[in-house]
Amino acid sequence: MSKEITSREADYSQWYNDLVLKSGLADYTPVRGCMVIKPYGFALWENMRDTLDRMFKETGHVNAYFPLLIPKSFLSKEAAHVEGFAKECAVVTHYRLMNDPNGGGVIVDPEAKLEEELIIRPTSETIIWHTYKDWIQSHRDLPLLINQWANVMRWEMRTRLFLRTSEFLWQEGHTAHATRQEAVEETERMLDIYAQFAEEFMAVPVIRGIKTASERFAGAEETYCIEAMMQDGKALQAGTSHFLGQNFAKAFDVKFANKENQMEYVWATSWGVSTRLVGALVMAHSDDEGLILPPRIAPFQVVIVPIYKGEEQKKLIDEKVNAIMKELKSYGIRVKYDDKDNARPGWKFAEYELKGVPVRMAIGARDLEQNVVELARRDTREKSTVSLDGISDHIRQLLEDVQQAMFDKAQKFRDEHITEVNSKEEFIRLLDEKGGFLSAHWDGSTETEDAIKEATKATIRCIPLNNKQEEGKCVWTGKPSSQRVLFARAY
Amino acid sequence: MSKEITSREADYSQWYNDLVLKSGLADYTPVRGCMVIKPYGFALWENMRDTLDRMFKETGHVNAYFPLLIPKSFLSKEAAHVEGFAKECAVVTHYRLMNDPNGGGVIVDPEAKLEEELIIRPTSETIIWHTYKDWIQSHRDLPLLINQWANVMRWEMRTRLFLRTSEFLWQEGHTAHATRQEAVEETERMLDIYAQFAEEFMAVPVIRGIKTASERFAGAEETYCIEAMMQDGKALQAGTSHFLGQNFAKAFDVKFANKENQMEYVWATSWGVSTRLVGALVMAHSDDEGLILPPRIAPFQVVIVPIYKGEEQKKLIDEKVNAIMKELKSYGIRVKYDDKDNARPGWKFAEYELKGVPVRMAIGARDLEQNVVELARRDTREKSTVSLDGISDHIRQLLEDVQQAMFDKAQKFRDEHITEVNSKEEFIRLLDEKGGFLSAHWDGSTETEDAIKEATKATIRCIPLNNKQEEGKCVWTGKPSSQRVLFARAY
Repeated sequence: MSKEITSREADYSQWYNDLVLKSGLADYTPVRGCMVIKPYGFALWENMRDTLDRMFKETGHVNAYFPLLIPKSFLSKEAAHVEGFAKECAVVTHYRLMNDPNGGGVIVDPEAKLEEELIIRPTSETIIWHTYKDWIQSHRDLPLLINQWANVMRWEMRTRLFLRTSEFLWQEGHTAHATRQEAVEETERMLDIYAQFAEEFMAVPVIRGIKTASERFAGAEETYCIEAMMQDGKALQAGTSHFLGQNFAKAFDVKFANKENQMEYVWATSWGVSTRLVGALVMAHSDDEGLILPPRIAPFQVVIVPIYKGEEQKKLIDEKVNAIMKELKSYGIRVKYDDKDNARPGWKFAEYELKGVPVRMAIGARDLEQNVVELARRDTREKSTVSLDGISDHIRQLLEDVQQAMFDKAQKFRDEHITEVNSKEEFIRLLDEKGGFLSAHWDGSTETEDAIKEATKATIRCIPLNNKQEEGKCVWTGKPSSQRVLFARAY
Repeated sequence: MSKEITSREADYSQWYNDLVLKSGLADYTPVRGCMVIKPYGFALWENMRDTLDRMFKETGHVNAYFPLLIPKSFLSKEAAHVEGFAKECAVVTHYRLMNDPNGGGVIVDPEAKLEEELIIRPTSETIIWHTYKDWIQSHRDLPLLINQWANVMRWEMRTRLFLRTSEFLWQEGHTAHATRQEAVEETERMLDIYAQFAEEFMAVPVIRGIKTASERFAGAEETYCIEAMMQDGKALQAGTSHFLGQNFAKAFDVKFANKENQMEYVWATSWGVSTRLVGALVMAHSDDEGLILPPRIAPFQVVIVPIYKGEEQKKLIDEKVNAIMKELKSYGIRVKYDDKDNARPGWKFAEYELKGVPVRMAIGARDLEQNVVELARRDTREKSTVSLDGISDHIRQLLEDVQQAMFDKAQKFRDEHITEVNSKEEFIRLLDEKGGFLSAHWDGSTETEDAIKEATKATIRCIPLNNKQEEGKCVWTGKPSSQRVLFARAY
């Protein structure tokens, strides 16, 4: 079968690529590091995007759209930011092509050179804070709670479908506040929204924490993150929320008149999640048969496959299915009836397992006589024969059960993969043998963090929020430490 | 008052710019020809986008996402296409910046030059048809009905907010079919959807027609369009749907095995509308006081302004308003309660007139005693005092009335501005004196079309669909003609 995918055990990395390509989520392109998000993958992203968008709006945010291109000089205005983002980015230098006078097709018109080069946004803090200078004069203009859905580009050297692509889709929130406290609260609020989304919709449990200085966003005072655990024991950063202090306000001279009519610099946050989440979703849940999608964001929650011989049977099944579909849709359930006659039921079963549809209903002529259907849930692959009476309520409950079971399974796995380690030897051994998060004491220095990364490829994923304070000795240097932090190899 | 806008009579062009800027739809940026779509403008665009997206999905289309960047050589593959699109576009030549060794900030790293330059998509036919080659093998893969919501860039020399910007947001549908007839039907279906959207949601009447050869999309066999009439008598192309024949299939070698297992080239369409529609909406309906937005796509359909003295009155009003809001929302009506205490009611009235909110409700303490409120509709600026009993039904009906009245008014204006002209002198005179569409005989030659454009700046906007066949003489050359076509000056 051409749709066969490599098993996780044989090659986890290849399994992931096979799955993304063969389930129809995405495809490669001739443009280095850029992918096509195929219709099935995009439908999944749309459900994620729309859910997040609703959560942002419910917390008072509005959407806007800022330019794709950023003047090169803007990047230099915030000292740390330029170091982080000016490195690998796409640079527009010309604005016209022309016919090659020597007949070599089209060439760049050398006359059409820009005075100042433009950068395709790797993130939009600079152009947005340049704009905010015009929008913010008084405390009455604050808070400004703006989000943007956009494409961004970072010229990545090593790319992977969804997880790390040169161009990706994301949202970036950029808020402005009158006080430090308000901005910190906003940073934490958005982290909570990301965590809630990951857990309740993606069924992916996450750890909330803050990054160490070396993993901090370029230009931030503090970077908060949610960290997830994949099935191969590697961590994945699923979202970040940055407290930017007054750094960008100072860089772009954005001040407001406070209630006492004194001018103050504005406080800022930014926060984002991207199509990377699709990769996280795939890696967290799927198996060797294909995707396993959580019902709340699956493009289709239920697929119905008819099993019949001849037109007469088909007609009876159609009639029943139409009634079921109508009822399911009235419950808001996304259902597809696949009655294409160019594939056998067995082929369709495999196809929808590959695509990760949470619940499959098979309905045959004999089933109809007995007033039953066969339901198969994708996560456990359990089948059951169920009465058609009250079938919609049954399915609704089943979808909730699948959602919860997926979360529980992922959480159990994640919890089993947080291991306290107390020596360098143990750290190195368990990182290879077991993987996952290693909870270890660290002396707080960037030097030690770098040394561990250099030696083991593990990084500090985060210092968990509300972390237990506990005296101990750094697992690497033996120096004193006041708390454990989470190390892991990561995507 | 700082929000004052130039009148249409004084300077139509300045009126438009004032309106867009001061109502909070958009703003200029430091990036040449690119704008910021501000939250209010983006909320309007979101309503338009979501409505169109629903209409596309109801007709079987799915969304996907293709790369922003296109290899330069792709543009050359379709001969007409490269002529139309290779001219003014943003060219990425490098992928890295570096610190200037001479201390001049960041500069482009000369080492990081791309082997082949990449173009920021001006439209995506080439990259998409390159991809379709992999996706289409058999008639079973057809039709392929894909749409993309994306940003595109055309390096425009003269730009105007929304109407013509270097970067703009749009959707581009790209479909593939087994037969010519199917593709033509799709082209016409999408034109109908655009017309339906313009008329039923934007309240802008449009004429459906086809473009002459010289106005055709670069690479199309036939370009269909919808043309709208602005208040200054200039036309505006509001959407196009292209029948591409087999041009792109041949350029990118996309063939399919038909039912007889013979290889054939695929038939194609593409179609798009953009944020330009926001400009059309503003120009078609608004007045010297501000925007006039049609209820079906207005960000807020109703704004409620309380009029009170003291906390006690405010509390009574709040209570009543909360009940009204709840009922309106249960009807799906988008309503805002503006009880900010830093502005007087009169200021708020002007502000929401500027923003074009279709219905304003003012509610005061004395109104409450009498169980009434004052409603003002934005389109006619009529006020009425209405009983609070059944207020939600009343408002629902009022919103429908406003929607219909806006369309009727625009249609009356448009119809009054279609004038049959029968001589060159009349053509030239009426174009200046009255503007609008001039319905005139044309000899069918590009030379004559060019001569008219050169002499008068009027272009053939379209040959209306189902055009009446009528013998006559070309208004410019006197040569024989079989039908009238629509000329106008246009945005």
